[in-house]
Amino acid sequence: MEFQLARALEILERTPATFRALLAGLPEDWTSPNEGPDTFSAFDNLGHLIHGERADWIPRARIILAQGTNRRFEPFDRFAQYRESQGKSVAALLDEFGRLRAANLTTLRGWQVGERELALEGEHPALGPVTLRQLLATWVAHDLGHVAQTARVLARQYREAVGPWREYLPVLGRPTA
Amino acid sequence: MEFQLARALEILERTPATFRALLAGLPEDWTSPNEGPDTFSAFDNLGHLIHGERADWIPRARIILAQGTNRRFEPFDRFAQYRESQGKSVAALLDEFGRLRAANLTTLRGWQVGERELALEGEHPALGPVTLRQLLATWVAHDLGHVAQTARVLARQYREAVGPWREYLPVLGRPTA
Repeated sequence: MEFQLARALEILERTPATFRALLAGLPEDWTSPNEGPDTFSAFDNLGHLIHGERADWIPRARIILAQGTNRRFEPFDRFAQYRESQGKSVAALLDEFGRLRAANLTTLRGWQVGERELALEGEHPALGPVTLRQLLATWVAHDLGHVAQTARVLARQYREAVGPWREYLPVLGRPTA
Repeated sequence: MEFQLARALEILERTPATFRALLAGLPEDWTSPNEGPDTFSAFDNLGHLIHGERADWIPRARIILAQGTNRRFEPFDRFAQYRESQGKSVAALLDEFGRLRAANLTTLRGWQVGERELALEGEHPALGPVTLRQLLATWVAHDLGHVAQTARVLARQYREAVGPWREYLPVLGRPTA
Protein backbone atom coordinates (compact mmCIF):
# COMPACT_ATOMS: atom_id res chain seq x y z
CA MET A 1 0.00 0.00 0.00
CA GLU A 2 1.23 3.45 -0.94
CA PHE A 3 1.95 5.78 1.97
CA GLN A 4 -0.74 8.42 2.52
CA LEU A 5 -0.62 10.70 5.52
CA ALA A 6 -4.37 10.36 6.19
CA ARG A 7 -4.08 6.54 6.29
CA ALA A 8 -1.01 6.73 8.55
CA LEU A 9 -2.81 9.03 10.99
CA GLU A 10 -5.66 6.51 11.28
CA ILE A 11 -3.22 4.08 12.90
CA LEU A 12 -1.08 6.55 14.84
CA GLU A 13 -4.06 8.13 16.58
CA ARG A 14 -5.47 4.80 17.77
CA THR A 15 -2.35 3.17 19.23
CA PRO A 16 -2.75 4.65 22.76
CA ALA A 17 -6.30 3.25 22.92
CA THR A 18 -5.07 -0.12 21.69
CA PHE A 19 -2.49 -0.26 24.49
CA ARG A 20 -5.10 0.86 26.98
CA ALA A 21 -7.48 -1.92 25.90
CA LEU A 22 -4.68 -4.47 26.03
CA LEU A 23 -3.06 -3.48 29.34
CA ALA A 24 -5.15 -1.19 31.58
CA GLY A 25 -5.91 -2.90 34.86
CA LEU A 26 -3.79 -6.00 34.21
CA PRO A 27 -1.74 -7.09 37.23
CA GLU A 28 2.06 -7.28 37.12
CA ASP A 29 1.83 -11.06 36.72
CA TRP A 30 0.96 -10.22 33.12
CA THR A 31 2.75 -6.94 32.50
CA SER A 32 6.18 -7.43 34.09
CA PRO A 33 7.62 -10.69 32.66
CA ASN A 34 9.81 -10.40 29.56
CA GLU A 35 11.15 -13.00 27.10
CA GLY A 36 14.74 -13.13 28.45
CA PRO A 37 17.73 -10.75 28.69
CA ASP A 38 17.43 -7.53 26.64
CA THR A 39 13.82 -8.28 25.70
CA PHE A 40 10.76 -6.20 26.51
CA SER A 41 7.93 -6.93 28.92
CA ALA A 42 4.51 -5.41 28.13
CA PHE A 43 5.51 -2.60 30.52
CA ASP A 44 8.80 -2.09 28.63
CA ASN A 45 7.03 -1.96 25.26
CA LEU A 46 4.90 0.90 26.53
CA GLY A 47 7.91 2.76 27.96
CA HIS A 48 9.74 2.28 24.67
CA LEU A 49 6.87 3.88 22.75
CA ILE A 50 6.89 6.81 25.19
CA HIS A 51 10.60 7.35 24.63
CA GLY A 52 9.94 7.36 20.89
CA GLU A 53 7.34 10.12 21.32
CA ARG A 54 9.96 12.26 23.04
CA ALA A 55 13.15 11.39 21.21
CA ASP A 56 12.45 9.83 17.85
CA TRP A 57 9.62 10.62 15.45
CA ILE A 58 8.86 14.30 15.86
CA PRO A 59 12.46 15.39 16.60
CA ARG A 60 13.62 13.56 13.47
CA ALA A 61 10.79 15.01 11.39
CA ARG A 62 11.86 18.49 12.57
CA ILE A 63 15.43 17.83 11.42
CA ILE A 64 14.15 16.78 7.99
CA LEU A 65 11.78 19.73 7.63
CA ALA A 66 14.43 22.25 8.73
CA GLN A 67 16.78 21.09 5.91
CA GLY A 68 19.77 22.53 7.78
CA THR A 69 23.38 21.72 6.98
CA ASN A 70 23.44 18.88 9.53
CA ARG A 71 20.52 16.56 8.84
CA ARG A 72 21.89 13.63 10.79
CA PHE A 73 19.54 12.17 13.44
CA GLU A 74 20.62 11.46 17.01
CA PRO A 75 20.91 7.70 17.58
CA PHE A 76 17.83 6.33 19.34
CA ASP A 77 18.30 4.50 22.65
CA ARG A 78 16.18 1.34 22.38
CA PHE A 79 16.63 0.62 26.07
CA ALA A 80 15.99 4.09 27.56
CA GLN A 81 12.74 2.86 29.09
CA TYR A 82 14.58 0.59 31.53
CA ARG A 83 15.69 3.84 33.21
CA GLU A 84 12.82 6.21 32.39
CA SER A 85 9.92 3.95 33.40
CA GLN A 86 11.39 3.03 36.77
CA GLY A 87 8.88 3.28 39.60
CA LYS A 88 5.99 4.15 37.26
CA SER A 89 2.75 2.18 36.93
CA VAL A 90 1.20 0.87 33.72
CA ALA A 91 -1.69 3.28 34.33
CA ALA A 92 0.71 6.25 34.51
CA LEU A 93 2.53 5.12 31.35
CA LEU A 94 -0.76 4.73 29.46
CA ASP A 95 -1.72 8.31 30.39
CA GLU A 96 1.72 9.63 29.47
CA PHE A 97 1.73 7.86 26.12
CA GLY A 98 -1.77 9.11 25.27
CA ARG A 99 -0.85 12.69 26.15
CA LEU A 100 2.43 12.71 24.24
CA ARG A 101 0.97 11.02 21.17
CA ALA A 102 -1.96 13.46 21.01
CA ALA A 103 0.41 16.43 21.26
CA ASN A 104 2.72 14.97 18.60
CA LEU A 105 -0.13 14.38 16.16
CA THR A 106 -1.31 17.95 16.70
CA THR A 107 2.21 19.08 15.81
CA LEU A 108 2.32 16.84 12.74
CA ARG A 109 -1.09 17.97 11.51
CA GLY A 110 -0.09 21.59 12.09
CA TRP A 111 2.80 21.27 9.64
CA GLN A 112 0.36 20.44 6.81
CA VAL A 113 3.02 18.48 4.97
CA GLY A 114 2.40 17.72 1.31
CA GLU A 115 4.19 15.71 -1.36
CA ARG A 116 7.12 18.14 -1.42
CA GLU A 117 7.81 17.83 2.32
CA LEU A 118 7.26 14.05 2.34
CA ALA A 119 10.08 13.69 -0.19
CA LEU A 120 12.61 15.70 1.88
CA GLU A 121 15.52 13.76 3.33
CA GLY A 122 17.39 13.43 6.59
CA GLU A 123 20.29 11.17 7.43
CA HIS A 124 19.88 8.16 9.66
CA PRO A 125 23.12 7.49 11.60
CA ALA A 126 23.23 3.87 10.40
CA LEU A 127 20.82 3.60 7.45
CA GLY A 128 21.85 6.73 5.53
CA PRO A 129 19.42 8.96 3.63
CA VAL A 130 15.74 8.52 4.48
CA THR A 131 12.69 10.58 3.56
CA LEU A 132 10.01 12.10 5.78
CA ARG A 133 7.57 9.73 4.07
CA GLN A 134 9.66 6.73 5.15
CA LEU A 135 10.00 8.11 8.69
CA LEU A 136 6.22 8.47 9.04
CA ALA A 137 5.55 5.03 7.54
CA THR A 138 8.07 3.61 10.01
CA TRP A 139 6.31 5.31 12.91
CA VAL A 140 3.11 3.45 11.91
CA ALA A 141 4.78 0.06 11.38
CA HIS A 142 6.76 0.50 14.63
CA ASP A 143 3.53 1.11 16.59
CA LEU A 144 1.95 -2.02 15.13
CA GLY A 145 5.13 -4.03 15.71
CA HIS A 146 4.96 -3.18 19.40
CA VAL A 147 1.27 -4.06 19.58
CA ALA A 148 2.26 -7.46 18.15
CA GLN A 149 5.27 -7.78 20.46
CA THR A 150 3.17 -6.89 23.53
CA ALA A 151 0.50 -9.45 22.65
CA ARG A 152 3.26 -12.03 22.08
CA VAL A 153 5.01 -11.51 25.42
CA LEU A 154 1.64 -11.81 27.19
CA ALA A 155 0.79 -15.00 25.26
CA ARG A 156 4.13 -16.55 26.16
CA GLN A 157 3.24 -16.58 29.83
CA TYR A 158 1.07 -19.56 28.87
CA ARG A 159 3.73 -21.30 26.80
CA GLU A 160 3.67 -24.34 29.09
CA ALA A 161 0.07 -24.06 30.28
CA VAL A 162 -1.38 -24.79 26.82
CA GLY A 163 0.15 -28.29 26.83
CA PRO A 164 0.01 -30.07 23.45
CA TRP A 165 -1.71 -27.10 21.75
CA ARG A 166 1.65 -25.37 21.67
CA GLU A 167 2.42 -26.68 18.21
CA TYR A 168 -0.70 -24.94 16.84
CA LEU A 169 0.25 -21.57 18.33
CA PRO A 170 3.18 -19.99 16.44
CA VAL A 171 2.94 -16.92 18.71
CA LEU A 172 4.44 -19.05 21.49
CA GLY A 173 7.63 -19.75 19.55
CA ARG A 174 9.35 -23.09 19.05
CA PRO A 175 9.89 -25.32 22.08
CA THR A 176 13.42 -24.99 23.46
CA ALA A 177 15.21 -28.33 23.16
CA MET B 1 3.22 -18.64 34.69
CA GLU B 2 0.85 -21.17 36.21
CA PHE B 3 -2.67 -21.19 34.81
CA GLN B 4 -5.22 -19.52 37.07
CA LEU B 5 -8.79 -18.97 35.91
CA ALA B 6 -8.92 -15.43 37.32
CA ARG B 7 -5.77 -14.44 35.38
CA ALA B 8 -7.11 -16.06 32.19
CA LEU B 9 -10.39 -14.17 32.47
CA GLU B 10 -8.49 -10.86 32.69
CA ILE B 11 -7.30 -11.43 29.13
CA LEU B 12 -10.40 -13.13 27.70
CA GLU B 13 -12.71 -10.34 28.80
CA ARG B 14 -10.61 -7.57 27.21
CA THR B 15 -9.98 -9.05 23.76
CA PRO B 16 -13.13 -7.60 22.15
CA ALA B 17 -12.11 -4.11 23.33
CA THR B 18 -8.59 -4.63 22.02
CA PHE B 19 -9.95 -5.50 18.57
CA ARG B 20 -12.31 -2.55 18.73
CA ALA B 21 -9.43 -0.17 19.55
CA LEU B 22 -7.32 -1.67 16.79
CA LEU B 23 -9.93 -1.86 14.01
CA ALA B 24 -13.10 0.19 14.59
CA GLY B 25 -13.47 2.84 11.92
CA LEU B 26 -10.47 1.72 9.82
CA PRO B 27 -11.18 1.70 6.09
CA GLU B 28 -10.88 -1.47 4.00
CA ASP B 29 -7.50 -0.28 2.71
CA TRP B 30 -6.23 -1.43 6.11
CA THR B 31 -8.63 -4.23 7.04
CA SER B 32 -9.01 -6.23 3.83
CA PRO B 33 -5.47 -7.08 2.60
CA ASN B 34 -3.98 -10.39 3.73
CA GLU B 35 -0.44 -11.79 3.58
CA GLY B 36 -1.00 -14.14 0.62
CA PRO B 37 -3.06 -17.28 -0.15
CA ASP B 38 -4.65 -18.96 2.92
CA THR B 39 -3.58 -16.12 5.23
CA PHE B 40 -5.82 -13.84 7.26
CA SER B 41 -6.58 -10.17 6.77
CA ALA B 42 -7.49 -8.14 9.86
CA PHE B 43 -11.13 -8.78 8.89
CA ASP B 44 -10.46 -12.54 8.65
CA ASN B 45 -8.76 -12.60 12.08
CA LEU B 46 -11.89 -11.14 13.61
CA GLY B 47 -14.17 -13.60 11.80
CA HIS B 48 -11.94 -16.47 12.91
CA LEU B 49 -12.29 -15.41 16.56
CA ILE B 50 -16.08 -15.25 16.13
CA HIS B 51 -16.16 -18.78 14.74
CA GLY B 52 -14.13 -19.89 17.77
CA GLU B 53 -16.73 -18.39 20.10
CA ARG B 54 -19.43 -20.48 18.41
CA ALA B 55 -17.64 -23.71 17.60
CA ASP B 56 -14.49 -24.14 19.65
CA TRP B 57 -13.90 -23.10 23.25
CA ILE B 58 -17.23 -23.41 25.01
CA PRO B 59 -18.49 -26.43 23.01
CA ARG B 60 -15.22 -28.24 23.78
CA ALA B 61 -15.36 -27.25 27.45
CA ARG B 62 -18.90 -28.72 27.57
CA ILE B 63 -17.64 -32.01 26.17
CA ILE B 64 -14.93 -32.15 28.83
CA LEU B 65 -17.25 -31.23 31.69
CA ALA B 66 -19.90 -33.75 30.59
CA GLN B 67 -17.36 -36.62 30.78
CA GLY B 68 -19.53 -38.73 28.50
CA THR B 69 -18.34 -41.86 26.72
CA ASN B 70 -17.34 -39.90 23.61
CA ARG B 71 -15.09 -37.02 24.65
CA ARG B 72 -13.68 -36.39 21.21
CA PHE B 73 -13.93 -32.79 19.94
CA GLU B 74 -15.25 -31.88 16.50
CA PRO B 75 -12.40 -30.69 14.26
CA PHE B 76 -12.26 -26.90 14.10
CA ASP B 77 -12.54 -25.23 10.69
CA ARG B 78 -9.79 -22.60 10.61
CA PHE B 79 -11.19 -21.09 7.43
CA ALA B 80 -14.92 -20.97 8.28
CA GLN B 81 -14.79 -17.17 8.43
CA TYR B 82 -14.19 -16.92 4.67
CA ARG B 83 -17.80 -18.12 4.35
CA GLU B 84 -19.38 -16.81 7.55
CA SER B 85 -18.12 -13.23 7.39
CA GLN B 86 -19.15 -12.66 3.79
CA GLY B 87 -20.91 -9.37 3.27
CA LYS B 88 -20.45 -8.26 6.88
CA SER B 89 -18.68 -5.08 7.99
CA VAL B 90 -15.86 -4.82 10.53
CA ALA B 91 -18.28 -2.87 12.75
CA ALA B 92 -20.81 -5.72 12.64
CA LEU B 93 -18.11 -8.31 13.39
CA LEU B 94 -16.81 -6.28 16.34
CA ASP B 95 -20.32 -6.18 17.80
CA GLU B 96 -20.87 -9.88 17.17
CA PHE B 97 -17.54 -10.84 18.75
CA GLY B 98 -18.20 -8.69 21.83
CA ARG B 99 -21.68 -10.17 22.30
CA LEU B 100 -20.59 -13.80 21.87
CA ARG B 101 -17.53 -13.41 24.09
CA ALA B 102 -19.54 -11.79 26.89
CA ALA B 103 -22.13 -14.58 26.76
CA ASN B 104 -19.41 -17.25 26.73
CA LEU B 105 -17.64 -15.78 29.74
CA THR B 106 -20.95 -15.66 31.61
CA THR B 107 -21.34 -19.35 30.82
CA LEU B 108 -17.79 -20.13 31.93
CA ARG B 109 -18.14 -18.18 35.18
CA GLY B 110 -21.49 -19.88 35.85
CA TRP B 111 -19.80 -23.30 35.85
CA GLN B 112 -17.63 -22.27 38.81
CA VAL B 113 -14.93 -24.71 37.77
CA GLY B 114 -12.32 -25.60 40.38
CA GLU B 115 -9.14 -27.66 40.39
CA ARG B 116 -11.08 -30.91 39.92
CA GLU B 117 -12.83 -29.71 36.75
CA LEU B 118 -9.70 -28.06 35.35
CA ALA B 119 -7.96 -31.44 35.44
CA LEU B 120 -10.71 -33.27 33.50
CA GLU B 121 -9.83 -34.45 30.01
CA GLY B 122 -11.29 -34.45 26.55
CA GLU B 123 -9.82 -35.81 23.35
CA HIS B 124 -8.51 -33.51 20.64
CA PRO B 125 -8.94 -35.14 17.20
CA ALA B 126 -5.24 -34.66 16.37
CA LEU B 127 -3.46 -33.87 19.65
CA GLY B 128 -5.02 -36.57 21.85
CA PRO B 129 -5.90 -36.09 25.54
CA VAL B 130 -6.07 -32.48 26.73
CA THR B 131 -7.36 -30.99 29.97
CA LEU B 132 -9.89 -28.23 30.54
CA ARG B 133 -7.02 -26.21 32.03
CA GLN B 134 -5.05 -26.53 28.77
CA LEU B 135 -8.13 -25.65 26.70
CA LEU B 136 -8.70 -22.44 28.66
CA ALA B 137 -5.01 -21.49 28.57
CA THR B 138 -5.11 -22.05 24.80
CA TRP B 139 -8.16 -19.79 24.48
CA VAL B 140 -6.11 -16.99 26.08
CA ALA B 141 -2.95 -17.58 24.04
CA HIS B 142 -5.03 -17.91 20.86
CA ASP B 143 -6.68 -14.52 21.50
CA LEU B 144 -3.29 -12.86 21.98
CA GLY B 145 -1.86 -14.65 18.96
CA HIS B 146 -4.59 -13.12 16.80
CA VAL B 147 -4.04 -9.67 18.28
CA ALA B 148 -0.38 -10.08 17.25
CA GLN B 149 -1.31 -11.45 13.82
CA THR B 150 -3.77 -8.62 13.19
CA ALA B 151 -1.19 -5.97 14.12
CA ARG B 152 1.32 -7.74 11.86
CA VAL B 153 -0.90 -7.87 8.78
CA LEU B 154 -1.68 -4.16 9.21
CA ALA B 155 2.04 -3.33 9.63
CA ARG B 156 2.91 -5.25 6.48
CA GLN B 157 0.91 -2.85 4.35
CA TYR B 158 3.90 -0.51 4.88
CA ARG B 159 6.52 -3.13 4.13
CA GLU B 160 7.83 -1.12 1.17
CA ALA B 161 6.87 2.34 2.40
CA VAL B 162 9.34 2.22 5.33
CA GLY B 163 12.30 2.04 2.92
CA PRO B 164 15.63 1.20 4.57
CA TRP B 165 14.04 0.96 8.05
CA ARG B 166 12.69 -2.43 7.06
CA GLU B 167 15.70 -4.22 8.52
CA TYR B 168 14.91 -2.76 11.96
CA LEU B 169 11.29 -3.93 11.89
CA PRO B 170 11.07 -7.71 12.35
CA VAL B 171 7.25 -7.45 12.25
CA LEU B 172 7.56 -6.81 8.49
CA GLY B 173 9.28 -10.16 7.83
CA ARG B 174 12.38 -10.77 5.77
CA PRO B 175 12.63 -9.18 2.33
CA THR B 176 11.62 -11.63 -0.40
CA ALA B 177 14.58 -12.30 -2.71
